[in-house]
Amino acid sequence: MQFNLRLLKEDDFLNGFFDTLSNLSEIGDLNKNSERIKEIFKELSCNKNFKIIVAEDKENLKIIGTATLFIEQKFIHDGGKVGHIEDVAIKKGFQNKGLGKEIIKELIEIAKEENCYKVILDCDEKVSRFYEKIGFKRHSIMMRINI
Amino acid sequence: MQFNLRLLKEDDFLNGFFDTLSNLSEIGDLNKNSERIKEIFKELSCNKNFKIIVAEDKENLKIIGTATLFIEQKFIHDGGKVGHIEDVAIKKGFQNKGLGKEIIKELIEIAKEENCYKVILDCDEKVSRFYEKIGFKRHSIMMRINI
Repeated sequence: MQFNLRLLKEDDFLNGFFDTLSNLSEIGDLNKNSERIKEIFKELSCNKNFKIIVAEDKENLKIIGTATLFIEQKFIHDGGKVGHIEDVAIKKGFQNKGLGKEIIKELIEIAKEENCYKVILDCDEKVSRFYEKIGFKRHSIMMRINI
Repeated sequence: MQFNLRLLKEDDFLNGFFDTLSNLSEIGDLNKNSERIKEIFKELSCNKNFKIIVAEDKENLKIIGTATLFIEQKFIHDGGKVGHIEDVAIKKGFQNKGLGKEIIKELIEIAKEENCYKVILDCDEKVSRFYEKIGFKRHSIMMRINI
């Protein structure tokens, strides 16, 4: 399987992006609301701290993977920056082919270019081994409150 | 102890903000570099998704607590938003007086106003009980890679 890694573009929304994301979590009705999608895309594109990357199948140029990096500027650690990885999703049928690993490694490279001193992410126990193979270490507990 | 909760202002940097943060983590030499502090403050103030709040001692108006909320716009969950809590710090000598709880509750209120569907944070095992008392639940593992 051959793929390109690149930043999300607006026409990816008609090209498998939501199919891919839906393998991670519920999308709701957003994919039926093209105006709202455009609004969100515009907002995120203007934010230099947000990088959504996609993997595009070289054969048919459909989106088959995605993940987001956002960069947090801190006052601690000498005004350092932290990269947060969110919403890692691989399209059904394209898992366990090394695609996720390449996407994560690409986000780590972007975080390096942005001078982050660390990259963090939250994940379930069952996928922690995947991240450990890339070099991540268990660090702490993620806690959540629904509001 | 009486205190006000409000957004961080530029003159807080000379008024106990770094003292407070240093009880959480290493600050480095940032507090000696007022130009860099101004740059970071300007960048974060312009970002509507970043809310740094401080607790100010009513008696002498010194900063005695702080925490940050940043708001992440997603494509999943119907284009929902997530609040991330970071860098919760209470000044030495002011801990265990209910200040941390009030700061976290205030950030949850801000997240509600911003229409977030959840608030998440990463913490050590030893402080998880503190967050559980506020209503947070253990959810997953935070993983980290230094770069």
